[in-house]
Amino acid sequence: MKKFVPVGVSARHAHLSQKDLEILFGKGYELTKFKDLSQPGQYAANEKIDVVSLDPKGKTISGVRVLGPVRGETQIELVRSDAIKNKFVAPVRSSGDIEGSGGCKLVGPCGEVVIDKGVIVADRHIHFSVEDAEEYGVKDKDVVSVKVEGKKGGIMHNVLCRVSPKFALDFHIDTDDACAFELSNGDQVEIIKE
Amino acid sequence: MKKFVPVGVSARHAHLSQKDLEILFGKGYELTKFKDLSQPGQYAANEKIDVVSLDPKGKTISGVRVLGPVRGETQIELVRSDAIKNKFVAPVRSSGDIEGSGGCKLVGPCGEVVIDKGVIVADRHIHFSVEDAEEYGVKDKDVVSVKVEGKKGGIMHNVLCRVSPKFALDFHIDTDDACAFELSNGDQVEIIKE
Repeated sequence: MKKFVPVGVSARHAHLSQKDLEILFGKGYELTKFKDLSQPGQYAANEKIDVVSLDPKGKTISGVRVLGPVRGETQIELVRSDAIKNKFVAPVRSSGDIEGSGGCKLVGPCGEVVIDKGVIVADRHIHFSVEDAEEYGVKDKDVVSVKVEGKKGGIMHNVLCRVSPKFALDFHIDTDDACAFELSNGDQVEIIKE
Repeated sequence: MKKFVPVGVSARHAHLSQKDLEILFGKGYELTKFKDLSQPGQYAANEKIDVVSLDPKGKTISGVRVLGPVRGETQIELVRSDAIKNKFVAPVRSSGDIEGSGGCKLVGPCGEVVIDKGVIVADRHIHFSVEDAEEYGVKDKDVVSVKVEGKKGGIMHNVLCRVSPKFALDFHIDTDDACAFELSNGDQVEIIKE
């Protein structure tokens, strides 16, 4: 069984529904590509939005990058340091699992919208193609641990395995995780089963 | 053997030598106490300084809290996210181990000074009193691991044990670690030996 996977570090970002995209950027608006991401078909868009806390003492995070293509539901992925500093409710969730998550206000050049759910801190997860999953001996929704070497090394528990023909091999962590473990894009880390 | 220790989260901060304190704040200056810290005799001072990167593309971190009392050598403890964002050289080191670490410029209300070493990211460490060390079955300079529960739980390796009659029991991590593991001041975590 293969054991090592490359790291992909995600900073805060936004996924928008077509409806919310049009509220923020105008009727009929379409995202424009800034650059491709590691997952096939996914891209960082040129568009950015402001994300405003609903807390009376909360703050605004300006210039949050939108990722494309649009999704069925808007989802704002913050990191915990953002949430603490700017007073957002942002539970740790798997992508798409947004019931009961945090709300916020989104502001674009043409309008704004308040969402009552969708603000999360993404869980740590590994994307596998179907072929990779077989080579690595994992199934969709398996939970594994990942070992990191180095002075600030350690083990991350509760790492979700996600398998799809649309995925490419990548271990997604956020910028808080990357800083705590001294990891950068492309570093190789070891899957361990516990 | 006891196993659980309370977490203490450190944000970026500065320790100053008396010489550097006087350059920054004026001849004969003495730090003034803002509040006591968990370690006996240590305190957060009211004084703050600006810490300037020496990188041509580097930035300034404004308002870095000084801790007292003064020390033999100036030491600036950043977190890795600070170092990346503002372009500082800041290797992971134990407190006091500053040979070959990063340099920076310090700016206070009365002057400024360039230091050629002293900028570090502090390693993860646990303070024990002599009595606590006995109860926990550890010696000074032992290296242990610490286990954290929760959705973003895991294990931190290479945690240094520091034992002194002047210490109080506390597991010191920085704000990057706290965010990555969803930890807050006073949380209880488990020492494991690996």
